[in-house]
Amino acid sequence: MTDKLLRVSVEKDSVSERDLPESYRDLGGRGLTSMIVTDEVPPKAHSLGPNNKLVLAPGILTGTSAPTSGRLSVGAKSPLTGGVKESNVGTSFGQTLHRLGYRAIVFEDKIKEKDFKYLKIDKDGAKLGDASKWNDMELYEAFEAIHNEFGEDVDVCGVGVAAELGGGNSGLAFDDLENKPSRYAGRGGLGSVLATRGIKFIIVDSQDAPGVEIEDEDEFQRGKEKLANALGEHDVTKPGGSLNAYGTDVLINIINEAGGLPHYNFSKGASEMAKKVSGERKAEIIEERGGDRPHPCSPGCVIQCSENWVQEDGEKVGALEYESVWALGPNCGIFDLDTIGELNKRCNDLGLDTIETGDTIAVLMDAGLLEFSDKQGALELMDEVEQKTALGRIVANGTQYAANAFGLNRAPTVKGQGMPAYDPRAIKGIGVTYATSPMGADHTAGYAIAPEILKVGGKPDPQDTKKGELSRNLQSSTAVIDSTGHCLFIAFAVLDIPEGLEGVVEEVNGVLGADLSVGDIDEIGSTILEAEREFNQKAGISKQEDRVPEFMEEEKVPPTNEVFDVPTEELEKVFK
Amino acid sequence: MTDKLLRVSVEKDSVSERDLPESYRDLGGRGLTSMIVTDEVPPKAHSLGPNNKLVLAPGILTGTSAPTSGRLSVGAKSPLTGGVKESNVGTSFGQTLHRLGYRAIVFEDKIKEKDFKYLKIDKDGAKLGDASKWNDMELYEAFEAIHNEFGEDVDVCGVGVAAELGGGNSGLAFDDLENKPSRYAGRGGLGSVLATRGIKFIIVDSQDAPGVEIEDEDEFQRGKEKLANALGEHDVTKPGGSLNAYGTDVLINIINEAGGLPHYNFSKGASEMAKKVSGERKAEIIEERGGDRPHPCSPGCVIQCSENWVQEDGEKVGALEYESVWALGPNCGIFDLDTIGELNKRCNDLGLDTIETGDTIAVLMDAGLLEFSDKQGALELMDEVEQKTALGRIVANGTQYAANAFGLNRAPTVKGQGMPAYDPRAIKGIGVTYATSPMGADHTAGYAIAPEILKVGGKPDPQDTKKGELSRNLQSSTAVIDSTGHCLFIAFAVLDIPEGLEGVVEEVNGVLGADLSVGDIDEIGSTILEAEREFNQKAGISKQEDRVPEFMEEEKVPPTNEVFDVPTEELEKVFK
Repeated sequence: MTDKLLRVSVEKDSVSERDLPESYRDLGGRGLTSMIVTDEVPPKAHSLGPNNKLVLAPGILTGTSAPTSGRLSVGAKSPLTGGVKESNVGTSFGQTLHRLGYRAIVFEDKIKEKDFKYLKIDKDGAKLGDASKWNDMELYEAFEAIHNEFGEDVDVCGVGVAAELGGGNSGLAFDDLENKPSRYAGRGGLGSVLATRGIKFIIVDSQDAPGVEIEDEDEFQRGKEKLANALGEHDVTKPGGSLNAYGTDVLINIINEAGGLPHYNFSKGASEMAKKVSGERKAEIIEERGGDRPHPCSPGCVIQCSENWVQEDGEKVGALEYESVWALGPNCGIFDLDTIGELNKRCNDLGLDTIETGDTIAVLMDAGLLEFSDKQGALELMDEVEQKTALGRIVANGTQYAANAFGLNRAPTVKGQGMPAYDPRAIKGIGVTYATSPMGADHTAGYAIAPEILKVGGKPDPQDTKKGELSRNLQSSTAVIDSTGHCLFIAFAVLDIPEGLEGVVEEVNGVLGADLSVGDIDEIGSTILEAEREFNQKAGISKQEDRVPEFMEEEKVPPTNEVFDVPTEELEKVFK
Repeated sequence: MTDKLLRVSVEKDSVSERDLPESYRDLGGRGLTSMIVTDEVPPKAHSLGPNNKLVLAPGILTGTSAPTSGRLSVGAKSPLTGGVKESNVGTSFGQTLHRLGYRAIVFEDKIKEKDFKYLKIDKDGAKLGDASKWNDMELYEAFEAIHNEFGEDVDVCGVGVAAELGGGNSGLAFDDLENKPSRYAGRGGLGSVLATRGIKFIIVDSQDAPGVEIEDEDEFQRGKEKLANALGEHDVTKPGGSLNAYGTDVLINIINEAGGLPHYNFSKGASEMAKKVSGERKAEIIEERGGDRPHPCSPGCVIQCSENWVQEDGEKVGALEYESVWALGPNCGIFDLDTIGELNKRCNDLGLDTIETGDTIAVLMDAGLLEFSDKQGALELMDEVEQKTALGRIVANGTQYAANAFGLNRAPTVKGQGMPAYDPRAIKGIGVTYATSPMGADHTAGYAIAPEILKVGGKPDPQDTKKGELSRNLQSSTAVIDSTGHCLFIAFAVLDIPEGLEGVVEEVNGVLGADLSVGDIDEIGSTILEAEREFNQKAGISKQEDRVPEFMEEEKVPPTNEVFDVPTEELEKVFK
């Protein structure tokens, strides 16, 4: 039995395995988390109440030898958006889970007492254990203690203080390749859904794992090869290409140049200072200090856009990605990679989403609680979370919540979720995705930056407002990529090189024994999106929520001096 | 010119009067505030952003000699519900405003700097003045200072610290007859809308006011007499009747008896302790201490259900109504009128809504921040607001916000607004009103308690779930009463005595020179409700929000051991 669905209820002290239902057989990753959540969670359920469920699902290819396929999806009704959420992470954890034969884990039932457990899964099955011994540890310390107890080779997932607080800004941390909690399914507050289900840690042990069953090895190999060729060829993804050479943070200079790098809580879109936190600069520092770069987030990645950031004191603390650098950096008026790295580490330690946290700090700065560029003040906000103070609870509830605390109308959020590192006024296609994605403001839901700025898969003018169709197509294909277990970054190659996309389909056919073609992708993606949107609509999120915040329609952002002027009809075209 | 519309923009330093547009001529109170807000405010406007407006409108009869007609409506897009809001208050302020010839004041434009003004209106017109001299005063002190400066006879409106914080739990305080800030348009956070428009105080001076013009004095007098007779006759409203003898707080024992008086954050519906805070007990204390009771909230009221509460030290601090006693009392496990009176006074001082504050404190108790029944802890929460701490900001943002801070799913709210003093599980018609009113959880929007418990205008079983039509009819007629300027309490008499209702229509016809009949009431009410609902829908509040919170559908409330089991179809019947 290698297609297992595991159900876990701490409240009922029960762990039960069964075959994955036939109807879910061709799903994985986001397709599977979204279908289980929309099938099983009542849309009007309170996200931290007894009827929500948290689902982990590796992608269809996760755990196979397909290149750059180490992604895991986490799904639930989100405490942040109030809708169905998928949060996606690159980590060996998901690979191990799939190799152990698990297609999904469903965590059910709210605990009545705060008595946290861990779940341990190995070749003999799953069991619950008492997590209280790690109660007072933050995540770096806890991950280390867990590895000391269970071995260096296990993979760990954990939630931190932010999740214990019930925050909408609380992610699930996963092992990076050095066993640090620096890989995050950060968005949407899913950490607190796991915590209210009574789980603080999940440990998976790959020893003697049977591996992922492949129905048609030949087709799978054919597909792999095509995709690997495309990835190796494309300028963005090839060895020594921009992602490999400088990591995701290569975008700092590029987006700054386009006037779309939000500074000072989305008050301006570029500065001379931004280059101080660029990928180019970061790579230099990592080299000086003996860190690791390039570096994969999970085994088998050929792009290797990640790295292992090194603090001034020489400690390696794990990944420091573009979104985190931007959110905790320029968006807060902080242009110092060491401070940003320290803030990033504190987020990892406390279980906070770095994007949401950066947006939140910037909002608190804008509201006057502290000054922009106040590094010490920003770090002290992390202490507030650690100490579970009222202010810490505000931080742990995210951007919109923090803005409301101060009556600030400049909250850069959609459906309650803080915006990522691209100003939708300067780059309007990504704004259409922010506005209309069922996930809330999410760049990964339909990464229009690829064509608009990187000129991959098209060359539309960033400020042209006709972006409904572009965003729609990207959202649909992304839903499929997020189901395969491939990293979204393969899209750079497969958008430009048709054989790459064929390869992905052949890999999936190989694993599932299916007979899909490239022409099926849009329908599969649309089906997932439709289920998500129907759930959201029943949860009370109407199409009126498919909008960017009012201030972005009125306040020009320098240097482009654009407002978000995509007409409502264009937004409504995305899902007509 | 006695039908004036005044527009005030502190940001533009402008005050301008013109004739009330003809299309608004037959509107007043809620009808007028809701029409102006829905006509002029973009539904997706941020409630504290530049495009929201706050409207004050006396009822059609407010300021005339019609009995019990001293109500003023305050309207805006609500920071608490995100929808259009009307909050209603009994105070001489509204009477003076109408006698000065003003049918509505519209406060526009957000201020850029926090530089608060006051608006002074007298027979010579309106002008802005610098309010900074009262900046550091709470409202009792500020109201006293204002009366010292402008005379005992002016009427004052003010907003407090809660409004300065931008809180969704911030009301507008108005003079009671002793010039204390104990009359409140409390609900929906409208105080912070006024504060962000740059206004902290409004002062109206009735000296040489021309008075309300009456088109047909004979019909007006005929109507007045019919209504006065009905009010004098009905057991609930007559002199010495239950409201007159014991005030609104007479409901404590009645609702406790019905098992519908929420205790301990809606965990149970009755207790032996409740009688310690009953109207009967309160009347004894007021008599012992030499307070005033019965007592009108505004001149010309024949019901006189209010009172002037006296502290242990002999200080008279103004009204202490049923909803406040319940919210700050049994709902928090506090059964001591002196503590409740002190909490009520602190709310008045800080500009907090007592219902929202009681719900908020109870939620914080339920979440474990403090114990239920912790009187000192509850009072200290008021200090947090005063000191503008992070915890104070949580209190100033209300029930749902406080629950989110602690990840608590037991938040008794609808559309973000905290529920009043009736458990919808034990008394289901009021639950239908809570769920479906465009105002959020609001007992006054369709007071089903009248028939369900007081057996006025019908005798339905409180636990019968077929209450859609009942709630609908009450919501529609209430929208009309709230437009006339009559207190909702006239409904007790006019629901049972048809001549009373005729009298109301004749009063209105007399003032307006109109030709309405009783048969027109439902259509007028429906028009108002429809405009409100359409605005809300465009603001993103879908019909899926017309629900009580999930925990009330699942958790039985003793002693009735009922859940809220009104079917969705019945809820959707209200506004099909």
